[in-house]
Amino acid sequence: MTKEEYMNLALSVAEATIGQTSPNPSVGSVVVKNGKIIGIGSHLEPGKEHAEVHALKQAGINAEGAEIYVTLEPCSHHGKTPPCADLIIEHKLKKVYVACLDPNPAVAGRGIEKLRQAGIEVEVGLQETRAEELNRKFFHFIQSKRPYVTLKAAMTLDGKTATSTGDSQWITSSAARLDVHKQRDIHDAILVGINTVLLDNPQLTTRLPQGGKNPIRIILDTHLRITRNSNVLSNEAPTWIVCGSKADIDTFSVEYPNIRLFQLTTENIKIEDVLNLLGEQNIQSLYVEGGSTIQGAFVAKGLFNECHWYIAPKLLGGKNALTTVGGESPHWMKDAINLEIEKIENIGPDIKITARPKKEEE
Amino acid sequence: MTKEEYMNLALSVAEATIGQTSPNPSVGSVVVKNGKIIGIGSHLEPGKEHAEVHALKQAGINAEGAEIYVTLEPCSHHGKTPPCADLIIEHKLKKVYVACLDPNPAVAGRGIEKLRQAGIEVEVGLQETRAEELNRKFFHFIQSKRPYVTLKAAMTLDGKTATSTGDSQWITSSAARLDVHKQRDIHDAILVGINTVLLDNPQLTTRLPQGGKNPIRIILDTHLRITRNSNVLSNEAPTWIVCGSKADIDTFSVEYPNIRLFQLTTENIKIEDVLNLLGEQNIQSLYVEGGSTIQGAFVAKGLFNECHWYIAPKLLGGKNALTTVGGESPHWMKDAINLEIEKIENIGPDIKITARPKKEEE
Amino acid sequence: MTKEEYMNLALSVAEATIGQTSPNPSVGSVVVKNGKIIGIGSHLEPGKEHAEVHALKQAGINAEGAEIYVTLEPCSHHGKTPPCADLIIEHKLKKVYVACLDPNPAVAGRGIEKLRQAGIEVEVGLQETRAEELNRKFFHFIQSKRPYVTLKAAMTLDGKTATSTGDSQWITSSAARLDVHKQRDIHDAILVGINTVLLDNPQLTTRLPQGGKNPIRIILDTHLRITRNSNVLSNEAPTWIVCGSKADIDTFSVEYPNIRLFQLTTENIKIEDVLNLLGEQNIQSLYVEGGSTIQGAFVAKGLFNECHWYIAPKLLGGKNALTTVGGESPHWMKDAINLEIEKIENIGPDIKITARPKKEEE
Amino acid sequence: MTKEEYMNLALSVAEATIGQTSPNPSVGSVVVKNGKIIGIGSHLEPGKEHAEVHALKQAGINAEGAEIYVTLEPCSHHGKTPPCADLIIEHKLKKVYVACLDPNPAVAGRGIEKLRQAGIEVEVGLQETRAEELNRKFFHFIQSKRPYVTLKAAMTLDGKTATSTGDSQWITSSAARLDVHKQRDIHDAILVGINTVLLDNPQLTTRLPQGGKNPIRIILDTHLRITRNSNVLSNEAPTWIVCGSKADIDTFSVEYPNIRLFQLTTENIKIEDVLNLLGEQNIQSLYVEGGSTIQGAFVAKGLFNECHWYIAPKLLGGKNALTTVGGESPHWMKDAINLEIEKIENIGPDIKITARPKKEEE
Ligand SMILES: [Zn+2]
Ligand SMILES: [Zn+2]
Ligand SMILES: [Zn+2]
Ligand SMILES: [Zn+2]
Repeated sequence: MTKEEYMNLALSVAEATIGQTSPNPSVGSVVVKNGKIIGIGSHLEPGKEHAEVHALKQAGINAEGAEIYVTLEPCSHHGKTPPCADLIIEHKLKKVYVACLDPNPAVAGRGIEKLRQAGIEVEVGLQETRAEELNRKFFHFIQSKRPYVTLKAAMTLDGKTATSTGDSQWITSSAARLDVHKQRDIHDAILVGINTVLLDNPQLTTRLPQGGKNPIRIILDTHLRITRNSNVLSNEAPTWIVCGSKADIDTFSVEYPNIRLFQLTTENIKIEDVLNLLGEQNIQSLYVEGGSTIQGAFVAKGLFNECHWYIAPKLLGGKNALTTVGGESPHWMKDAINLEIEKIENIGPDIKITARPKKEEE
Repeated sequence: MTKEEYMNLALSVAEATIGQTSPNPSVGSVVVKNGKIIGIGSHLEPGKEHAEVHALKQAGINAEGAEIYVTLEPCSHHGKTPPCADLIIEHKLKKVYVACLDPNPAVAGRGIEKLRQAGIEVEVGLQETRAEELNRKFFHFIQSKRPYVTLKAAMTLDGKTATSTGDSQWITSSAARLDVHKQRDIHDAILVGINTVLLDNPQLTTRLPQGGKNPIRIILDTHLRITRNSNVLSNEAPTWIVCGSKADIDTFSVEYPNIRLFQLTTENIKIEDVLNLLGEQNIQSLYVEGGSTIQGAFVAKGLFNECHWYIAPKLLGGKNALTTVGGESPHWMKDAINLEIEKIENIGPDIKITARPKKEEE
Repeated sequence: MTKEEYMNLALSVAEATIGQTSPNPSVGSVVVKNGKIIGIGSHLEPGKEHAEVHALKQAGINAEGAEIYVTLEPCSHHGKTPPCADLIIEHKLKKVYVACLDPNPAVAGRGIEKLRQAGIEVEVGLQETRAEELNRKFFHFIQSKRPYVTLKAAMTLDGKTATSTGDSQWITSSAARLDVHKQRDIHDAILVGINTVLLDNPQLTTRLPQGGKNPIRIILDTHLRITRNSNVLSNEAPTWIVCGSKADIDTFSVEYPNIRLFQLTTENIKIEDVLNLLGEQNIQSLYVEGGSTIQGAFVAKGLFNECHWYIAPKLLGGKNALTTVGGESPHWMKDAINLEIEKIENIGPDIKITARPKKEEE
Repeated sequence: MTKEEYMNLALSVAEATIGQTSPNPSVGSVVVKNGKIIGIGSHLEPGKEHAEVHALKQAGINAEGAEIYVTLEPCSHHGKTPPCADLIIEHKLKKVYVACLDPNPAVAGRGIEKLRQAGIEVEVGLQETRAEELNRKFFHFIQSKRPYVTLKAAMTLDGKTATSTGDSQWITSSAARLDVHKQRDIHDAILVGINTVLLDNPQLTTRLPQGGKNPIRIILDTHLRITRNSNVLSNEAPTWIVCGSKADIDTFSVEYPNIRLFQLTTENIKIEDVLNLLGEQNIQSLYVEGGSTIQGAFVAKGLFNECHWYIAPKLLGGKNALTTVGGESPHWMKDAINLEIEKIENIGPDIKITARPKKEEE
């Protein structure tokens, strides 16, 4: 195998863990000696062994003189686990291949520096693009202190998300809905507005055949209008409610001691405050499922990193049918937010379009 | 070359003429003798030579004993030109390959019958699917007496066709707009509502680098609100206006003698009446460009055969931004019209989705 | 349609005639006015109408002010037909699109010059690569005065063309053999050595379901060893025999008056002399079917332009089994002739590799 | 992730170890609980932990109630490691997904039986085809007691492997030669005839940028003609020499104590005896690199499982140039060995064809 193939193997085992390591990144590692793999590891759970630890444990004393491939710069500080850079030095590896540097500018390069000072050769940048894509949510969080936001919408080909009477069941196929559950599984939190809770009464849990992780349910509810029968108040998953300064939180707190309540200092909820708040709470990835007004608020401020659009091959029609992204439109078409299409997929009978805000050219 | 390859050649030269032969279908023909092509022809202009005539003219007396490939059953009746079946018999061809039968049930099979009675072998159905696709508009017209309707919409990824202030310039790229001009070129008529005329004041002509045919401009204008400065009143292309029974047509006719006016017997315009009227006027293909209310009327009645959706990679947002298909929505999502996706294309930065109403399964 | 699409149409109708116009090139033409095709034509038979003639005949007086697309520079000299450049001038066309220039350096550009002097705009080079590929055999012939040589071989995966006892029926599938007949149909002549005639007694005719042209059969037979029962002596197709200076041609000529005999001035046959001879006889394309010694002679001199290798998924084995290319090998592997792979196709169960001698880099 | 995706991950980590676990198969395992991966492991080295051991070690006590994916039926017998079936039972897993059964008919199904008796649910056959392909060499060996034989040849497009003077350097590109080294790395042994040793004096070692395993070098040398300066006598890799009954082994043994010598009881070497011998020595995979006579012997007996043909885009020519597969050819083409093409790849400028003997249809 070539060095690219070894790093790709490390990336594959890392990619398989996406969503389960937060607030840590997904990392994979492979130890190779004389063209033979002597250790493979992924970081599997926050607070537990880093990828290098698993890989080096398998390699054992055989690691001396071997080469290690790591998808992210080995850590150099004492956290819940001792620094991986030290572990590599102790094991006397000969060379370290690193796909990309630590995204935290304060520590980026330190792990590598430590390794080099110990006389270990380090090569940085092998399969870097794939490695950055793998941890794009983590990187965004580290650099901005806010979660990576993915807007999700399901609509008919003519852009409707519900009929004028509010009916939206079901726009898309079960295949597309399964894909949504896969997304919930790999996000830290899911966000909807109170209207969606009151109208659709969703559970907002992950239902996958082989099981999955429930994201934290975030409800934006300015006036605390949520009602007792709301499915999101169940104990299946944690629920956080964000409300405005005028909401009566005392009564609520008594009645729902298990629900975390975040009261903002402003009467109305501003998206940027919500993102800052979630960032402080270590929410790295946020999946915004609607409704229309909420999506509109994110789009109006340009506060999102990715969007997943599920388009059903249907025409509904209706000027009063619900549009996917509501709120206020800009006055001019030229002020729309430009996107870059990442992927167009067929999911069952539906089409999924993945796009990201277009980078400004300088 | 195989017989499939010869028929494909006939289909290719026919496809190149799409849009220029109406009210006649697009037809191609190839004459082959001993594996050598001795004639190739397309029907090029209504009233002029049929495809077989061009191909047989090239073949000349050499046609005796040859085989002829025709994409549509040769005609057997005296029209503006003598029947092609007779011509084939006169030229003493040995065999005729026909891709598909005449769509008119009253005459389907007569041409073939005539040929067989003259002792000429006939094989029907070679590349039939492609041949039917080629003339699907013509076939629909012959069988329903109404034009084949293509709805065209341009929208942002979130389904908006204009901002809340009505601005729509430009949603899509110049590449997508060029594609729209290609569509105009191959349609008999283009239809918009009076609101589109008053708000956008479009020309509705075909502007292609190598030239093209202007379709007839059909304006639905219940109360004859059209104003003098409207670009669609220009002489560049014929314009027909359809109005309701209460419209004051006398004043209008005096002022615009060149504009054809169709007054319906009902106060409001019903889409089915418009389609019947256009069918009577031999309009075989209709390209509906909007606006929102007009599209809504076609969709609500399910009166369309194809839709072309141009999606720009943009998010606009806005609950009051204009939706592509307006009118009244059904109450339930399950009453939306199901489509079959035919094609997804990248056109410049935009996505074009071509779909057709899903055939009911029996 | 764009100008590229119009030229592609002209190229498509030209490509359909490959092999039937020799010694003329394959040419197609399309006349367009206001985005409407008013004439399509191919040159169909040597000595008959050029492509432009057919296309302009269909266009008629309507051609005035139109644009014409031609895959090859229109002729400017009086041949069997009057010059097409004059015809274009007479018809008062506005613009001429030419894919590529006449390959004859003595006249290249003259047609265009004439058109320009008549005030007609000319654009050269539209889809030029495809046009040159279309007529690569013709171009080679015009420039070198020798036929374009295609070596054809059928072999097992281990490079055997027959068992040690000479059995070769059948190496490849019927699908591959059909492909060979398609090649015969589009070549002026087919060449084999006398050993192939004596051992396999082939017919060397074109047997295609829809018919096809028999190439001239060229037999290299130094000592005139051909026997009476040889199938290549049939009247189905012309047969030319090339022999050496010592062959007894008198007896032969009496017995086979229909067979053309070419006696070289040397005792042995040299490939370059054969190619010069065939060039003088206006053979533009030569399909070399073997056997092994003959292929070896062409390869040893590097005298070929293309090779078609049919590889059957079989292992035969055997150091005395027959190899596809015999003769003498160079002493060093570095003296092998380098090829450029053009295409790898699956034909039935077999693989067809099309390659051409690699152009030397300067 | 779906269950197919989890098994594919287990297969990917197994595939990365191909060639390094012999005489054990390549096996991968993934432990999943509530849609979260809690263990990933591959078997990395013969005699060391099985894949399940690594994966369960990572999972720890968390494994209780989890599901485990294994690419091969877990072992149930005490070998160098305790039975994995017992380990799974001890860890109280809920369900076991097995891609394919143990290939040894004597024990196939026993591991599964044990698991089921312990009340653990077992699903067999998930991604079975890919799992069988992964260990096809191991499966063949277990079932036939002979190594899986891959014939490798490099030839020009006209089937030559050397010039008439024996020169073969270099037929193929460095990219193709790198691919050969990758193959050496994943085979237990490599086999050539004495002529190849004497003429080319190859090293037959694995030279890959990231290192690799040297296969055992097997030399077929009937009369022990090998000379002292032969590179294959180096200590870089083990070398075994197979000779006939008349060879003088005493002198040789004294001189080359490090070389293993296998003297057959017959005067000449028969391929089937060699394969039986290697099977007894636990050689599971054999890469036959030639020369021509040796390949011929394998092909004549039909004793091979796969062939890798590297075809350089070159024509050499020459009836005395060396053919890839020598020996005696069958008398009739119909007696060639039919293959099934598995893959056609471009490797640098060369083409690689991978094929296997066609299965007889019953
Ligand atoms: Zn670490
Ligand atoms: Zn007709
Ligand atoms: Zn001409
Ligand atoms: Zn085990």
